[in-house]
Amino acid sequence: MATAITYEGKAKILTPTAEAGIFQVFFKDDATAFNAQKRGQIRGKGEINCTISSHLLQFLQNQGIPTHFRRQIAPNVMEVQALTMFALEVVVRNQAAGSLCRETGIPLGQELTPPLVEFYYKNDRLGDPLLTPDRLRLLNLATPEQVQTLVDLAQRVNGQLRCFFAECGILLIDFKLEFGWDDHGQVILADEISPDTCRLWLAQETDPVRRVVDKDRFRHDLGEVESAYQLVLERVLRQ
Amino acid sequence: MATAITYEGKAKILTPTAEAGIFQVFFKDDATAFNAQKRGQIRGKGEINCTISSHLLQFLQNQGIPTHFRRQIAPNVMEVQALTMFALEVVVRNQAAGSLCRETGIPLGQELTPPLVEFYYKNDRLGDPLLTPDRLRLLNLATPEQVQTLVDLAQRVNGQLRCFFAECGILLIDFKLEFGWDDHGQVILADEISPDTCRLWLAQETDPVRRVVDKDRFRHDLGEVESAYQLVLERVLRQ
Repeated sequence: MATAITYEGKAKILTPTAEAGIFQVFFKDDATAFNAQKRGQIRGKGEINCTISSHLLQFLQNQGIPTHFRRQIAPNVMEVQALTMFALEVVVRNQAAGSLCRETGIPLGQELTPPLVEFYYKNDRLGDPLLTPDRLRLLNLATPEQVQTLVDLAQRVNGQLRCFFAECGILLIDFKLEFGWDDHGQVILADEISPDTCRLWLAQETDPVRRVVDKDRFRHDLGEVESAYQLVLERVLRQ
Repeated sequence: MATAITYEGKAKILTPTAEAGIFQVFFKDDATAFNAQKRGQIRGKGEINCTISSHLLQFLQNQGIPTHFRRQIAPNVMEVQALTMFALEVVVRNQAAGSLCRETGIPLGQELTPPLVEFYYKNDRLGDPLLTPDRLRLLNLATPEQVQTLVDLAQRVNGQLRCFFAECGILLIDFKLEFGWDDHGQVILADEISPDTCRLWLAQETDPVRRVVDKDRFRHDLGEVESAYQLVLERVLRQ
């Protein structure tokens, strides 16, 4: 019997299960960047990202942060709670990188104190634009209370993940989160946490190319993409 | 004797005068759009924009809003107070248009209540990017107190100009302001207010092309650019 696909994204496929309110997420090896203008594959990425995400979401869950994670049922398949998703990407930045540097001229790696929490409109047609608080309000993408909850949760996730990665010898430069809400209106962390969605630098490495162990290796053709993802997996599992 | 040019922008030239702290602004016919990717000339624009700006800045001054305007000394020359400028463009939006529509999908002409006050980083190299309040703070482009003053002044200017243009039969859709500060730290409205810096629609006209009487006629090759600027001039002077 063919499985119904509820949603196919750039890196994952979501399908319903026999159990109401529970979905399966298949992690793909497909990689895209720059709003899907660059496309490719990273061998083993599906299994690696599913395993890293499962580990980190379980870790956050144990720290009292509500997540959609239920269990990992295969190397590249995660079982999650079905949610209604915000059309938002919540980006937390500990050090300047990526579009923040391009758009503001702030130098790569500049410490951001306090960490910056930014909202982007998850909308491929519009190119996932940055949102000011006013634009976020105008678009009715979340209520003011939900926005405050998202900021609070993003900051808590950052506090936990930053320490977690520090113990792996990895700097958490920035990362993207996605959230949804359940039938009771509770805001819950969803999606994945992986080298696809985080900028990660080796703490002991100062070379600006060698230190990168995240999707920037794919974005900017830095080579050794698979081994960087593998390194992150090994360090995360060792924790 | 050649006059020293202190600053040449895309539409204006600033030169010092014999009087300390007083500059002359020459308004050019040159027109640019899309961060100077499109270039051209609008015949008579220098004189028209200088005259409209002089009239509107004097009007705002009379309403108690501090401006750099001293007097108009020739059809295309204004005498102004020298200021230290913020590297900011303050945009006030009463109805959605331009980049707001492109970046958010909000329909053209949607009423924005309350009016939106947005900040852009005045930086040609970076393409004048939109700034969130956090990015504005990070870049140290203004203190929190100055930001509040800029928002307050922008809202007051909008209140005055919106009524002024309404009495001209013109809708003030959005506009861009620039500010500086004097030796005492007072925040003062600078630059110009003209069809180059405002979106203006004829209130009685519903046709989406015919109603436009601002630089969008140049930006989008709608024709009759000069006569639109001339119409605005005549209506402003009639007030």
